[in-house]
Amino acid sequence: MCELLAMSANTPTDLCFSFTGLTRRGGATGPHRDGWGVAFYEGKGVRVFLESGASASSRIAEVVQTHPIKSEVAVCHIRQANVGEVCLANTHPFVRELWGQYWTFAHNGQLQGFRPSPGFYQPVGDTDSEALFCDLLNRIRSDSDPGISRQALTDRLVTYATEYAHRGVFNLLLSNGDWLFTFCTTRMASITRRAPFGPARLKDADVTVDFESETTPNDIVSVIVTEPLTTDEQWDIYAPGEWRLWFKGEVVQSGCESVPARSHPHPSV
Amino acid sequence: MCELLAMSANTPTDLCFSFTGLTRRGGATGPHRDGWGVAFYEGKGVRVFLESGASASSRIAEVVQTHPIKSEVAVCHIRQANVGEVCLANTHPFVRELWGQYWTFAHNGQLQGFRPSPGFYQPVGDTDSEALFCDLLNRIRSDSDPGISRQALTDRLVTYATEYAHRGVFNLLLSNGDWLFTFCTTRMASITRRAPFGPARLKDADVTVDFESETTPNDIVSVIVTEPLTTDEQWDIYAPGEWRLWFKGEVVQSGCESVPARSHPHPSV
Repeated sequence: MCELLAMSANTPTDLCFSFTGLTRRGGATGPHRDGWGVAFYEGKGVRVFLESGASASSRIAEVVQTHPIKSEVAVCHIRQANVGEVCLANTHPFVRELWGQYWTFAHNGQLQGFRPSPGFYQPVGDTDSEALFCDLLNRIRSDSDPGISRQALTDRLVTYATEYAHRGVFNLLLSNGDWLFTFCTTRMASITRRAPFGPARLKDADVTVDFESETTPNDIVSVIVTEPLTTDEQWDIYAPGEWRLWFKGEVVQSGCESVPARSHPHPSV
Repeated sequence: MCELLAMSANTPTDLCFSFTGLTRRGGATGPHRDGWGVAFYEGKGVRVFLESGASASSRIAEVVQTHPIKSEVAVCHIRQANVGEVCLANTHPFVRELWGQYWTFAHNGQLQGFRPSPGFYQPVGDTDSEALFCDLLNRIRSDSDPGISRQALTDRLVTYATEYAHRGVFNLLLSNGDWLFTFCTTRMASITRRAPFGPARLKDADVTVDFESETTPNDIVSVIVTEPLTTDEQWDIYAPGEWRLWFKGEVVQSGCESVPARSHPHPSV
């Protein structure tokens, strides 16, 4: 299994604090040592750091922890392999261009033996996750056009995600750099930080931050994760089937679908 | 204008030495301070480091210089902007998935006002280079199928590239992670290193390497650049219109097309 992390903010914000906590779970405080990746949107562009090894001991992850990269949307994943070998092609997040936008996808869960409907987008690696991403994009491309409203597109994303959730565990982060769509079948939590900002302490590393000194009163920054990253803040836990569309740090659409009850799979070895 | 660098090798090889030389030209020994990027293939996967600032002063470029990432194919670009603002979305190399492979494109030159034929792939940024890449992929997708032989595909790439070269300066690096296609209209040079390996000294930094100590007798490693990177080796200069298809460090197809004579544009400010 894997862990997810995403950020949605109304001003370009770095992910150093949260990324430091998550990457510790990639081989130090957690078993997710089979790859890590993080996508940072900057305007319409996106840059992705990917590696097929453990984030906790990665020199490049260390640079990303300490070198502030400012984004309004970021998507991050640490992997413990179940389907697909440990290699770069199987490392999330995955990126494809659709309608002149880079779409980024990270998934936690398993839909064993999933095969995408034939279409334009094809997986490069052999994970069920990338196959799901291609299937999702192929369906969007055939069902929708670039002028579709955000609300109508979200309705379709909810329909597709609910279908996938009936076939297996499907915790999802999806973004086009503008909005961030999140869908939970087993585990997901979020926190929205806004003025008055306070301090926070990571669960996985001896690191504290005082957000007051790093923000302005207008900043709104939300973080969405598999498991809460801090010990002294109140995280908002998603229900199974719950989805939220984030835009500039806030939830702009949300709902809860009926999905089969599933236990969060134990980490495979 | 910009400078290009690529590598094709028969064994996973790091690019540290050549990348160190090139990145110096991104704001120190050269004026290409408007972004840099490098794509490293690892198996079918690819990871791309991108930044919209000067490589010579980049902390991330410094890590890439000193942290050996082993690839059989790498594609690199440093940018001095002419068409399109300085931003991440306009930073080469560009990547798209076609037929379940990641295709990577870097371009040096200018085809002002180029508009791609409508098609599946759309540019995200506003450079002529990315528009060319999308046009090229749309044409491949409509003219060819995934089963096309490498030789037949190369013939088509040559046809497309020659057409583009009639419309402006078109120095090209293109790879699917397997082969590396290079096309020159104004400036390009290559070197193939194989046993017996010797030392080499960079032109742009006080750095010498002894390839003998870093290789095995079977290694074949070729580097393709806009301007030679070393002072004490014999580089093979491309003629205008010359193209070479590299595979595992060696040229497997090549030719020379008739293209309009063009001076290499002076760097724009």
